[in-house]
Amino acid sequence: MRPLKKEVRILGIDDSAFDKFNDRTVLVVGVLFRGGEFLDGVLTTRVSVDGSNSTKKLADLITKTKFRPQIQCIMIDGIAFGGFNIIDIVRLHDATGIPVIIVMRDYPDIPKIKRILKKIGMGPKARLLEKAGEIIPVYPKSPKDPEKNVHIQFYGTTRERALEFVRLSTKRGNIPEPLRVAHLIGQGIILGESRGKA
Amino acid sequence: MRPLKKEVRILGIDDSAFDKFNDRTVLVVGVLFRGGEFLDGVLTTRVSVDGSNSTKKLADLITKTKFRPQIQCIMIDGIAFGGFNIIDIVRLHDATGIPVIIVMRDYPDIPKIKRILKKIGMGPKARLLEKAGEIIPVYPKSPKDPEKNVHIQFYGTTRERALEFVRLSTKRGNIPEPLRVAHLIGQGIILGESRGKA
Repeated sequence: MRPLKKEVRILGIDDSAFDKFNDRTVLVVGVLFRGGEFLDGVLTTRVSVDGSNSTKKLADLITKTKFRPQIQCIMIDGIAFGGFNIIDIVRLHDATGIPVIIVMRDYPDIPKIKRILKKIGMGPKARLLEKAGEIIPVYPKSPKDPEKNVHIQFYGTTRERALEFVRLSTKRGNIPEPLRVAHLIGQGIILGESRGKA
Repeated sequence: MRPLKKEVRILGIDDSAFDKFNDRTVLVVGVLFRGGEFLDGVLTTRVSVDGSNSTKKLADLITKTKFRPQIQCIMIDGIAFGGFNIIDIVRLHDATGIPVIIVMRDYPDIPKIKRILKKIGMGPKARLLEKAGEIIPVYPKSPKDPEKNVHIQFYGTTRERALEFVRLSTKRGNIPEPLRVAHLIGQGIILGESRGKA
């Protein structure tokens, strides 16, 4: 396997803040990065809060952008946008032909998420969590610093390649740059000022 | 004069696309950059199209942000936002205590702008263009490549320091990173996809 080029194009995607009682949709921000270095473009769409259209909305966003031929990896901050609008990463890969990596800060409490989905009448969505495959830890710097790791699920590439995409694009802290920046933009646009987590 | 640190914090500000017949305000995006390297935060506000509130809106944005203590330079893409909402860079500096640099791709045709301002009944605004001081060329790479230069006006710092801020933060092409990225974000948010000029 040839190593990835340092400036391989990665599309990082995150949703932004929303009011779960009043907003019907949430802003989704995609940023095209050259590795972890330069921002080349910004894309936006909206998905419904707790809806089921995130996979289709992302597939449309990616297949229609002028940046499409350059994108070699789709990196997503968490498997759901707008609450429980869960992404089907197998379908997203099939629709785009591009490897998909879900990045999570913490190891998700799957049994708890399943209980909540059942309780709010969205039990069948739980299968999308399984469909996204094994959850594996990534140590961007070193396994000796386990508190700084992230977890991923991926589809459409090998485990080694998925780890390489995450490590290559992580420059500060433990969050890959395309996701750190997508998060800051979403916060800045919706809240007027970015803050916190990343 | 001590050289600037490589990661000196620069706030780059640009407006975004608007419809001059239908929009009363335009989105303004500020990005906090460490030199030309990392994006640290995103701020947004809105100013009126062809109005007179851009100086006050920017001063409010900057004096109220949590990032205020870090900002060592305010870099602005052009002296007007939302058409002819011209920024008073002397007042902006006085309100914030921070050096202000206007960056222009082309040397502006001042007589033409004055004629237009007069024609649309905004003649007095022309004095803000004079107030912003001499327009000087900056060659980010080399004076031998004159087509790639930008022009600046500045206030609240020396000419040498202003040139240093622009050169230090220019990484790709001739546009300083904080402005290149503010532009891409504004386009991506308003148009759904960033394009062109930068």
